[in-house]
Amino acid sequence: MESRLELIVRSTEIDVNGHVNNAKYLEYLEWGREDWYESAELDYAAFLEMGIQTVTVNVNINYRRECVQGDRLTVRTVPLRAGRTSYALKQELIDGNGAVRADAEVTSVCMDAAERKSRELPQRLREMLERGIGPSG
Amino acid sequence: MESRLELIVRSTEIDVNGHVNNAKYLEYLEWGREDWYESAELDYAAFLEMGIQTVTVNVNINYRRECVQGDRLTVRTVPLRAGRTSYALKQELIDGNGAVRADAEVTSVCMDAAERKSRELPQRLREMLERGIGPSG
Amino acid sequence: MESRLELIVRSTEIDVNGHVNNAKYLEYLEWGREDWYESAELDYAAFLEMGIQTVTVNVNINYRRECVQGDRLTVRTVPLRAGRTSYALKQELIDGNGAVRADAEVTSVCMDAAERKSRELPQRLREMLERGIGPSG
Amino acid sequence: MESRLELIVRSTEIDVNGHVNNAKYLEYLEWGREDWYESAELDYAAFLEMGIQTVTVNVNINYRRECVQGDRLTVRTVPLRAGRTSYALKQELIDGNGAVRADAEVTSVCMDAAERKSRELPQRLREMLERGIGPSG
Repeated sequence: MESRLELIVRSTEIDVNGHVNNAKYLEYLEWGREDWYESAELDYAAFLEMGIQTVTVNVNINYRRECVQGDRLTVRTVPLRAGRTSYALKQELIDGNGAVRADAEVTSVCMDAAERKSRELPQRLREMLERGIGPSG
Repeated sequence: MESRLELIVRSTEIDVNGHVNNAKYLEYLEWGREDWYESAELDYAAFLEMGIQTVTVNVNINYRRECVQGDRLTVRTVPLRAGRTSYALKQELIDGNGAVRADAEVTSVCMDAAERKSRELPQRLREMLERGIGPSG
Repeated sequence: MESRLELIVRSTEIDVNGHVNNAKYLEYLEWGREDWYESAELDYAAFLEMGIQTVTVNVNINYRRECVQGDRLTVRTVPLRAGRTSYALKQELIDGNGAVRADAEVTSVCMDAAERKSRELPQRLREMLERGIGPSG
Repeated sequence: MESRLELIVRSTEIDVNGHVNNAKYLEYLEWGREDWYESAELDYAAFLEMGIQTVTVNVNINYRRECVQGDRLTVRTVPLRAGRTSYALKQELIDGNGAVRADAEVTSVCMDAAERKSRELPQRLREMLERGIGPSG
């Protein structure tokens, strides 16, 4: 359960310093998570059917190297932790040489869409997470 | 050495879920840091004169409550740590009732603009940071 | 029926050329239109109650002068035309010296939210538009 | 002299109404123009060498159909007009069925980078434009 999304850095994503602004990295990561959920057949509609919303509660991101216009990057997303009501994905932004431009841990909580309270991870999500974390995870 | 920047959440900052997208929070925080540097009379030009660039190396943000269109928010920025070549600012996004919508620690490194290597914090920045952290900081 | 929204150009709105990117102007204009609708007591909820959605079908914008970080600008929005199912607003982005940085005509169509077909402007919207256009409009 | 750039609509490009916000279309168009300039071997560095900057002075865009997350779109860019100091490109945002989601005319002026005054189109740019417009253009 690993997903890889490819992207190209566009001109409007570059700030006055000539590189990708730090807020934009979080958009790249979100695109990568969407791709992970889709790979896991857990898209927005699937969650909705289960009466669930997932809410991002923490992002911890390390900026390691700058990104510039035209860079071809891969967002790699893998499961990191599965708790009772929360879980974390590990994400890396990798360039064509395999160098990590940024890496992040993104923690989300599973909410009951109607009651707006945290609730246990649905079985399908837990399976997908655990498959990625592995037996020793 | 504390800065407070006021902002109003705009329509184009709202995502499909009806609230401010998590990447947008990092823009709000950047606006707040710009405000802090200006309060400290350490704007872009001042750093440039010293031959220095500051680079964000880590952002650790907790999303606590959602923000919606029309919300009037304050970005509060205070110094948190001052190391030899790096430093951290603490930032909070606060609503009109004093509730914290998000808080973050943002770590930056001081770079020599020419050599692109980390270097010691300039005296002016260190003073501004230490004034905010206080004697027991 | 004229609305004036004030804004300050923020660091993350600046592109690699050091000025506000041309796409960002359209966000400023949208904020201004939201403000105009609110002044006219025609916010999103009011339209929804009437079973109406407004859809932007054309934007014609002239970029006259660049905008840079820290600029304090006013988005001025006034009605320009009221047709049977469509209408246009005139918008200007004005600086503190009264100079026009950009101006635009924005044409929208009134849609039946359920049937997704164009329909006549609701009376309240027509009144607000005509009040702004004036007798010779 | 026609360029075609492919893109996929990403989650963070969707607004509260569930479709791509109208400002975002202008970013897509800018990506397309960058691609056109590159195809014409007229990138930013090439203009800089000639002492030239190009400045967008008008965008006239028709929004024809909404775009939603996951849409695979092509930005098609062709020359439309070549004046003495200004020129226009025609751009279309096309979906996989060949339907036009939006089309636009984008007018730019050639500026002397040092004197900040308009100046004649450089020969290379004029050639690329005229090749696209054709003899009857």
